[in-house]
Amino acid sequence: MNLSDTTAKDEIVVRHAESNDCEEIVRLIVELAEFEKMADQVKMTPQILRKDCFGEKPICSCVVASKKADKSSLVGYSLFYPVYSTWEGASLYMEDLYVTPSYRSSGIGKKLWQRVTQIGLDMGCSRLNLCVLGWNKMAKELYERHGFVDLTSKEDWHLMRMDREGMEKFVQQT
Amino acid sequence: MNLSDTTAKDEIVVRHAESNDCEEIVRLIVELAEFEKMADQVKMTPQILRKDCFGEKPICSCVVASKKADKSSLVGYSLFYPVYSTWEGASLYMEDLYVTPSYRSSGIGKKLWQRVTQIGLDMGCSRLNLCVLGWNKMAKELYERHGFVDLTSKEDWHLMRMDREGMEKFVQQT
Repeated sequence: MNLSDTTAKDEIVVRHAESNDCEEIVRLIVELAEFEKMADQVKMTPQILRKDCFGEKPICSCVVASKKADKSSLVGYSLFYPVYSTWEGASLYMEDLYVTPSYRSSGIGKKLWQRVTQIGLDMGCSRLNLCVLGWNKMAKELYERHGFVDLTSKEDWHLMRMDREGMEKFVQQT
Repeated sequence: MNLSDTTAKDEIVVRHAESNDCEEIVRLIVELAEFEKMADQVKMTPQILRKDCFGEKPICSCVVASKKADKSSLVGYSLFYPVYSTWEGASLYMEDLYVTPSYRSSGIGKKLWQRVTQIGLDMGCSRLNLCVLGWNKMAKELYERHGFVDLTSKEDWHLMRMDREGMEKFVQQT
């Protein structure tokens, strides 16, 4: 095998996810959760993701980074969906942006993120939003370096959540 | 006019929004922004909202509180849309919950919020999310009293945003 073969073998392409990528995407979702020591909280399965991304009423989308020589083998993904501002209309939310450790520092994350951003521009979105852990300083600084503004620090926005049990209790209140 | 007539006239119903509610919903969106002294930032129009709520590919939904005697006259609204957790799947996000000042403290806000929550349960959502301004202590305490957890305080999540100009710059980077 000569050098050009090796390069071709390792070359990565960023593309839209397809239905049969869901097993690999869920593998990476679990890999990320394991890194965060919270894998036990992952209830996602390829079947659920396939329905929610590629079913009759899709509620999210993915772009993936795959090996050029083996399209089915993924090394990164980003999951995103439209959100809405009552002041500015359609916006895009980037839920996850992940690259497997052995493929980091080669610009794959930025390519995934740029692809998501371009999709947002093409959809006419006025904003790209995400949430980041404040203690994850490397990620937070990277986002800020490329133009993200921390609205929690700037405007004091707090993210609030009610789980399903709380939702069920709340609707029963008189 | 006897008492029962007066009661009937002022009675409020909570219902799904219809396409011809969009003028009134945008009036309330602007009313909320005026209260926050940021009305100049509102670029929303009834035409945009109608397309995004009732067009070919809806990206948000509304419930409204209207007078029973005059269905077209709105006193409150909530705008919401599906979001996605890569761990738990479909969730719901409540973007706005607003009741015009003269109709507050009569449970209308709670009814709107309960309706949104029930829609989330019917959709199989595992979570209801929202963002609240930390300095808006009354709203924040109300949400917490009814089961919301502040994930910014508990887990250090920060809300980040890139505007359209930033998005355009970012995709051009090499």
